[in-house]
Amino acid sequence: MEPALYLIPVTLGETEYQKVLPEYNRKIILGIKNFIVENRRSAIRFLKLSDSSIDIDSLEFLELNEHSDLAKISNYLDPLLKRKLPMGIISEAGCPAVADPGATVVEIAQKKGLKVVPLSGPSSMIMAVMASGLNGQSFAFNGYLPVKPNERAAKIRQLENRAWNEKQTQLFIEAPYRNLKMLESILNSCRNETRVCVAAGLTTEQEFIRTLSVAEWKKTNEPPINKVPAIFLIYRG
Amino acid sequence: MEPALYLIPVTLGETEYQKVLPEYNRKIILGIKNFIVENRRSAIRFLKLSDSSIDIDSLEFLELNEHSDLAKISNYLDPLLKRKLPMGIISEAGCPAVADPGATVVEIAQKKGLKVVPLSGPSSMIMAVMASGLNGQSFAFNGYLPVKPNERAAKIRQLENRAWNEKQTQLFIEAPYRNLKMLESILNSCRNETRVCVAAGLTTEQEFIRTLSVAEWKKTNEPPINKVPAIFLIYRG
Repeated sequence: MEPALYLIPVTLGETEYQKVLPEYNRKIILGIKNFIVENRRSAIRFLKLSDSSIDIDSLEFLELNEHSDLAKISNYLDPLLKRKLPMGIISEAGCPAVADPGATVVEIAQKKGLKVVPLSGPSSMIMAVMASGLNGQSFAFNGYLPVKPNERAAKIRQLENRAWNEKQTQLFIEAPYRNLKMLESILNSCRNETRVCVAAGLTTEQEFIRTLSVAEWKKTNEPPINKVPAIFLIYRG
Repeated sequence: MEPALYLIPVTLGETEYQKVLPEYNRKIILGIKNFIVENRRSAIRFLKLSDSSIDIDSLEFLELNEHSDLAKISNYLDPLLKRKLPMGIISEAGCPAVADPGATVVEIAQKKGLKVVPLSGPSSMIMAVMASGLNGQSFAFNGYLPVKPNERAAKIRQLENRAWNEKQTQLFIEAPYRNLKMLESILNSCRNETRVCVAAGLTTEQEFIRTLSVAEWKKTNEPPINKVPAIFLIYRG
């Protein structure tokens, strides 16, 4: 197997490996002993889900998250750099380095001229864009919005303006327990014609994807998105 | 199988099904008789790649592309709407409705309250963001840029400003035979510190992914991206 930094997507929630991931990724996973992971426990759970026979004790894990010491991260790639061993990055859900840690290590790999190989897997963002019926020719992912109500409302209106003026679908996320508050903020901040898609629990049994105008959302019952990972999308009417 | 509009990703080029697509999608595909496709021939090629025993003659195809009659598209979903038959959308590469046709039909499905199910598969954009080492917490896909040199240079500078001021990675694409011209435009338009990732031939044998500053790109040899589908990403240094 070629020595490289492999970017390994994982399932988005309680779903089987074969529902969202290609067979090929399993082969790559079995060839790697050195992993950089967002969370050791969830990475191990995923590796066992990929192949129950995997010998976890033979693997090495380095954690990469908000607690990681930036000074040490530059050594994370030593197995690949010095011993030509393939390495993998695994985040907690979906694709590493997309709305999740990983980019810092990939940046170092790119600077050192190491080979970086992204594997195919579920991206909640892309699936949300696909299923929204909103513009997929131009879209932006904006991460988390400010938490303070006034700042949040201002940010939502700024994104709404961009959606209308530049015809660019705007995506953002929120901590799952605040999803309903987020939807409320959107409905209170946006024009009646603006279209809003809520895509929650993608690929799981709780999957809920719906696009309605602000005016229509105001007339519907509360959607089943409380505490379910969700993506919000807005676009002009 | 549940009656719904299934969004079916395909391979990005000459690569095997199992390298980039989950087993589950194959099951879904085998349950569908009515497909909306960007191109009939390439859709059939993909369906045979998914399962060589598939009986193509038993399937119905409606084409959805720049030649489609918009007035007729509203009837495309009749099998699902009137006969509760599951339907699928297949584009020519990657995920339908993302930088490819499909969104119009999904929009109609959402308006009619039909269930829309996005399947997991390769997205060149997400893989490019993952492997670039650039910001994956905030990024925008901008489709094609203007072709006229002056307008293109102005647009590149506008996107570069957004990358620096808003810390948002900017993605765009070009017709493969103009890739080298595009890289030249970027290098002539951007600051020396701006980082540029070129991600070409993703998941295929020609895969080439490299992130360098403008100054560094100017010192390197021409990359092997001519006539290979590519994504360009720019971000601040």
